[in-house]
Formats: sequence, C-alpha cells, structure tokens
Amino acid sequence: MHRAMPIVTLTSDFGASDHYVAAMKAAVLKNCPHARLIDVTHQIPRHDILRGSIVLERAIDGFPPGTVHLAVVDPGVGTQRRIIVVKIKRQFVVCPDNGLITWAWRSRSGAKAFELTWRPKKASNTFHGRDVLGPVAGKIASDARIGSLARNNVKPILLDIAPSKTRQGQIIYFDHFGNAMTNIGEGLLGKIKFKNVLVHGKKLGKLKRTYGDVAPGVPLALIGSSGLLEIAVRDGNAAKQLKLKVGDRIRLD
Amino acid sequence: MHRAMPIVTLTSDFGASDHYVAAMKAAVLKNCPHARLIDVTHQIPRHDILRGSIVLERAIDGFPPGTVHLAVVDPGVGTQRRIIVVKIKRQFVVCPDNGLITWAWRSRSGAKAFELTWRPKKASNTFHGRDVLGPVAGKIASDARIGSLARNNVKPILLDIAPSKTRQGQIIYFDHFGNAMTNIGEGLLGKIKFKNVLVHGKKLGKLKRTYGDVAPGVPLALIGSSGLLEIAVRDGNAAKQLKLKVGDRIRLD
Amino acid sequence: MHRAMPIVTLTSDFGASDHYVAAMKAAVLKNCPHARLIDVTHQIPRHDILRGSIVLERAIDGFPPGTVHLAVVDPGVGTQRRIIVVKIKRQFVVCPDNGLITWAWRSRSGAKAFELTWRPKKASNTFHGRDVLGPVAGKIASDARIGSLARNNVKPILLDIAPSKTRQGQIIYFDHFGNAMTNIGEGLLGKIKFKNVLVHGKKLGKLKRTYGDVAPGVPLALIGSSGLLEIAVRDGNAAKQLKLKVGDRIRLD
Repeated sequence: MHRAMPIVTLTSDFGASDHYVAAMKAAVLKNCPHARLIDVTHQIPRHDILRGSIVLERAIDGFPPGTVHLAVVDPGVGTQRRIIVVKIKRQFVVCPDNGLITWAWRSRSGAKAFELTWRPKKASNTFHGRDVLGPVAGKIASDARIGSLARNNVKPILLDIAPSKTRQGQIIYFDHFGNAMTNIGEGLLGKIKFKNVLVHGKKLGKLKRTYGDVAPGVPLALIGSSGLLEIAVRDGNAAKQLKLKVGDRIRLD
Repeated sequence: MHRAMPIVTLTSDFGASDHYVAAMKAAVLKNCPHARLIDVTHQIPRHDILRGSIVLERAIDGFPPGTVHLAVVDPGVGTQRRIIVVKIKRQFVVCPDNGLITWAWRSRSGAKAFELTWRPKKASNTFHGRDVLGPVAGKIASDARIGSLARNNVKPILLDIAPSKTRQGQIIYFDHFGNAMTNIGEGLLGKIKFKNVLVHGKKLGKLKRTYGDVAPGVPLALIGSSGLLEIAVRDGNAAKQLKLKVGDRIRLD
Repeated sequence: MHRAMPIVTLTSDFGASDHYVAAMKAAVLKNCPHARLIDVTHQIPRHDILRGSIVLERAIDGFPPGTVHLAVVDPGVGTQRRIIVVKIKRQFVVCPDNGLITWAWRSRSGAKAFELTWRPKKASNTFHGRDVLGPVAGKIASDARIGSLARNNVKPILLDIAPSKTRQGQIIYFDHFGNAMTNIGEGLLGKIKFKNVLVHGKKLGKLKRTYGDVAPGVPLALIGSSGLLEIAVRDGNAAKQLKLKVGDRIRLD
C-alpha cells in the first residue's frame, strides 16, 4: 500500500536540547521526503531500555498500517550489537537489538523480527540514529515494506519483563503524573476475582472506574488508558506519596 | 471551506516523557489524515486550568480560519463534566468545560460554545484526549465545521479572571523568561493617563518600548507581544527578582 | 527550485512552556502554508548565543537545498540590531546579527550574508521571531530565494570562537549526555600525530572509535558525530565527572 504521507514516529533518549533529533529527522526525510514525523518522546532517561520498551509499545497503538516506529536507546552504538526491524500489527519498528522491543513483543502476538543488513557507505560510530536507523526508517516508510534491507527470522534480545499471568504483578512504569503502570492487563483482571489491590502492604480496595471516584489525595487502583492495572492518587503523585518504584510487587487478594 | 492541510494545535498538561501526546495525535490523524499538527505546549502544570486558559487564548492568534485548537487540562476526566466545542474568530476550540476557555472567551467577542454530544463506541475513563477530544478535533478539522457533533448554545464554565477595565489589574501568567503578563490590555492603556506602573509598592515608571530601553537587571513595564501590560527585568527574571506571583495586584498611578 | 514541502527548521531560547514557538510557526505557515516545520531545539539557555551558534551549525547538516533555518536567540530584540539572511550550502539561515551565525560561518566556506530590509507593517517590539523573522523564513521557504527581502554583502558579527588550527583547542559545547564537543575538527586530527588528548592535565590517551572501546565510567576522547574531537565518559557524564566547562583548554600531545 502506497500512502500519500506515511507516518514515522520517533522515540529516543536524546533529550530536547541538542540538534540530534532534527538530524535524525533529516535522515528520515532524505529517504522519504513526504514522511509525517511524530515525536513520541525523546525524554527516555539515558540508556533506560526498559522504559523505552514500554513507551515504544504504547506508541504502536492507534497508528495506521505502514507506520514506522524509530526507537533509539542505544548504549551499544558503534559496537557489534545488531539492529532489528520488527513487523508488528502491520506496522514496523526499527531499533537496536538490546531489549527495546521487549514489551511490544510480549504484549502482542504475531510479531516477526528481522536483522538489519543494510548499512550506509559511511557512518559515524556514535550516532546510528542519524546514520543507520533513521535512513532505514525512511526507506521502509517510503515503500511500506522491508524489502532487501533486513534478513529473516531472528529472535530478538528480550528483557526479563512480561505481562503477568497470575495474581502477582509488578510496577513497570511511572508516567509524568506519577501514576504507576503495572504488568497486570485487563484481560487477566477480567478472569480473576479479588477484593483488594495490594501494594507495599497497603490495601487499595477494588478497582475504581476513574480518578474522580475517590477524594483528592486518596490512592486508588484502576484500569488505565493502556489497558493495564494502574496505581494512582487523585490529584496527586502515587510514585511520591506511596514511595513506589519500578519493580515493586503488586498483589490481587 | 476545504483545505489541503487543516491545522490542529495541541495544548495539554501531559508533559513530554510519555506516549500520551503521540496517542492523541494518532487519534486526530485517524479522523483527519492530512491534518497539520502544531504543538503549543504540553508543559501546562498539572491541572492548572488558569495557565492553560491563557496559553490557549494565545494559541488562537495568527492561525487561519478553520484551525482547530485541542486543549486538554482535565482533572475531571471520566466524570460527568461536559466537553465543549467553541467557535471563535472562525477557528474552533475543543476542550473540557472546566474554565479552560475563560481567557479566550473573555478577551474576544463573538465566541459561541456548543456541548459535545458525540461519543466513541468505546472510551477509557482516564484518557479522553485520545478517545474523545482527539477524534473530535480531527473530525472538525476534516470538515471545517462542527456538524452534528455538538449541540447549540451552552454557557461555558468561566474562571474568575477577566481583562481589567480599571487602573487596577493583576498578574495572570509568567512566561519561560519570568516575564509577568497582566490582565491590563493595550486598549485600556491607550485610554488612561498614568506616570507609574506599580507592583508590590515598587514604581516602574512609564511604559518602556522594549527591554533594551533600560540597563541590564533593571525592572520595567511594557506592552508585551500579547498586547498586555507586562512586567519584566532586562536580561533577568522578573518573577524571581521582584518576588511576583499569579494574582499579585498591579496599579497604574 | 520549487518544492512541494519546503523545510523550515526552528532553533530558539523560547523554551517549551509558552505559546511562543507555536506563534512563530503560525507566522511561517501564513507565508508558506506548505512548509514542513522541524524543531531543532527551543532549549538554548536564554541569550546563550554561543550555544545557539553551535546548534544552528549542526542543524544545517543533512537537510536538502532550499531548507530555511530560523534561529532566534535575540537579547537585542526591538533595538537597532540587524537581522541577517545567510545563504550557506544552498540553504538559508534567518537570524539576528549578534553572533548566532558564527560557528556555521567559520566552519563552512562560501557563506554569504545579507541584511534583512523587509519589515512588516506592524510589529511588536519584543517578539520579532513571530513578527519579522518567522514571516521572512516563510517567504524564503516559499520561493527558495531571498528576492528583495534583503540587501547584499554585509559582514556578520562573529563571536570569538573558531575551528582550531593547532594542537590546542577548547571545549565549545556540552550535549544532553554531558559529552564535550571541542573546536578541533577531524580534518585537523588527520594531519597531526599525537599520543595523548589532554584535558585539565588528565591524559585520555589516543582517540577511541566509540564509547564501547573503554569500560563503563572511563573517560575517552573520540571523533564525535559532528566530526569534532569529543570528550566523553562511557555510560557517564563527562561534564560532571571531569568537571569540565565551556572554554576549557584541550591539548594534543
């Protein structure tokens, strides 16, 4: 399918204060002059592959077939680490093979990963987002296919994180508001009976529908907009108020 | 009027570190694939409706007829609070009815507000920016009209803030540089004679033309780029240096 | 050359919390409705012309002929300072004549500067990004030429910074990761023999190829993605760990 303005999203740990994001965008546009560029975030903390992985999975939601997601959190840039192209839900992800694909890979079925074989004639050793991954994202967006850029059937490196299949889960992510996302999905929640969501021994009661169901300052558990069990504080910051951190255990009782 | 690339601006308190803004953009694009997306800011402090209201009004300036402004500062998300569509200066605003429209409504004449009646088949309870307001912004941008999405003639909720009609005013906003915007407009300033702008008992003298009219570090009053009386410090931060805060009284003497 | 979607990049010290960037974009679009807008950064520290100059030069890389770079770090706004349009590598820069062009001017040959003579019928005294430079960037993008907007042959104001021609250099810029860029370019490095890069008396040895060539936490010198000698710490922050600052001397020994 050829589209007038294919979408390329960008996720990185580049921050917003340098020219790096613009340089990566220039590389995409050089290979796909009509690409529509959508920043997801460039505020992934440096080298935080787990956080990058969660954001990247979320970025796939809502975009049309053919969208290319360019994700660069890449502590191994310039070494022999692989770069992969992943086909997922008729969209594409281009990222280093260092675990960044984990959450998308494990949350969605039917993804396929390919090893990128294309390389530019000349590349820096420290900025493959501009020199390798950006051009590839542009090329794929331009054709809506991988073509000869990558070869088949690699198993990507995966982090030790997966959707929970039991009453036990963990916190995987905090958003800008201090809301804690967990690895317990709404599919599982529909199958289990429980009276309490417990975190740090604190009982949050049953799931609420939205923040307004409790008084300001009160903690609650609900199904967040990502379809995951979320711990929040109405008009407050759950991370700070409940002293939560990534990896903290959640239990449904 | 059908335009090749209708503009949708986005203003929110979502921050820049999550996927939320991209998800909202995906929802706009799904309903208007050729929309041109312009971020105003996503750095409104959480739930700061007053600040959101000032920024939103400013965002209307300079954009062409048919532009849609999507503004989401929404502490009541998922409750029964209304969502409104406002027609203003041949542009559109889509926002929760919680006071966000105040400054635009009171600074400009002839605005009309309509209650949004359209709802999606399925929506989360915590992210209406993606599930309700984003799609609506896209639909309106696509047709350059409200059509059957909203019904007529509601009076929006308004905050207790308005352009001053007297020699007394107040600080309503600080920008990135620490400049203080007040609710005293250039229309009023043209009609009143005064020798001094007073803030915190401090006399700033007559209006200056630009920052360079005083020495570095010196406070001044001038008509800012928004057409409002502004308190600034040349090469400095007026908010910090003069210990100003939103709501502080200004007097023309 | 007329292009379907000419590119306009934006670099400023406006920050991300106000409407200023969107207002400047509206002004570009009014004069070039099909411009593609690419933010470089709006996080230049206030009035930091040196830093703006380095970022602006970097922004030119990779973009096609006809691209317009709009750069606004403008402490003298509203005073008699000139505005210049610079033609460089078949691209255009529009910026105040206060040294912002320095690094691009000195790093690349063949640039030509013209004094902007066009002025709008009405302009604020404090926001020429919206009222003067933005419209001009749009006009130039629209036609891919300067036309009658500016007159010939001015010598721009330049900061006291230039690419090094000797074994001595200095730190000119820190990126988001704390990596230090210096004014020693790869061209010079190819001609000089040396065993050690010295900074603050600390010996960093020979140039490494990439960060992964040393152990985590170890400082190194390498040719960065900008083609300049860079001081970094693997998985660390060279600025903090080595207590570096802009202007610090570098020596090749």
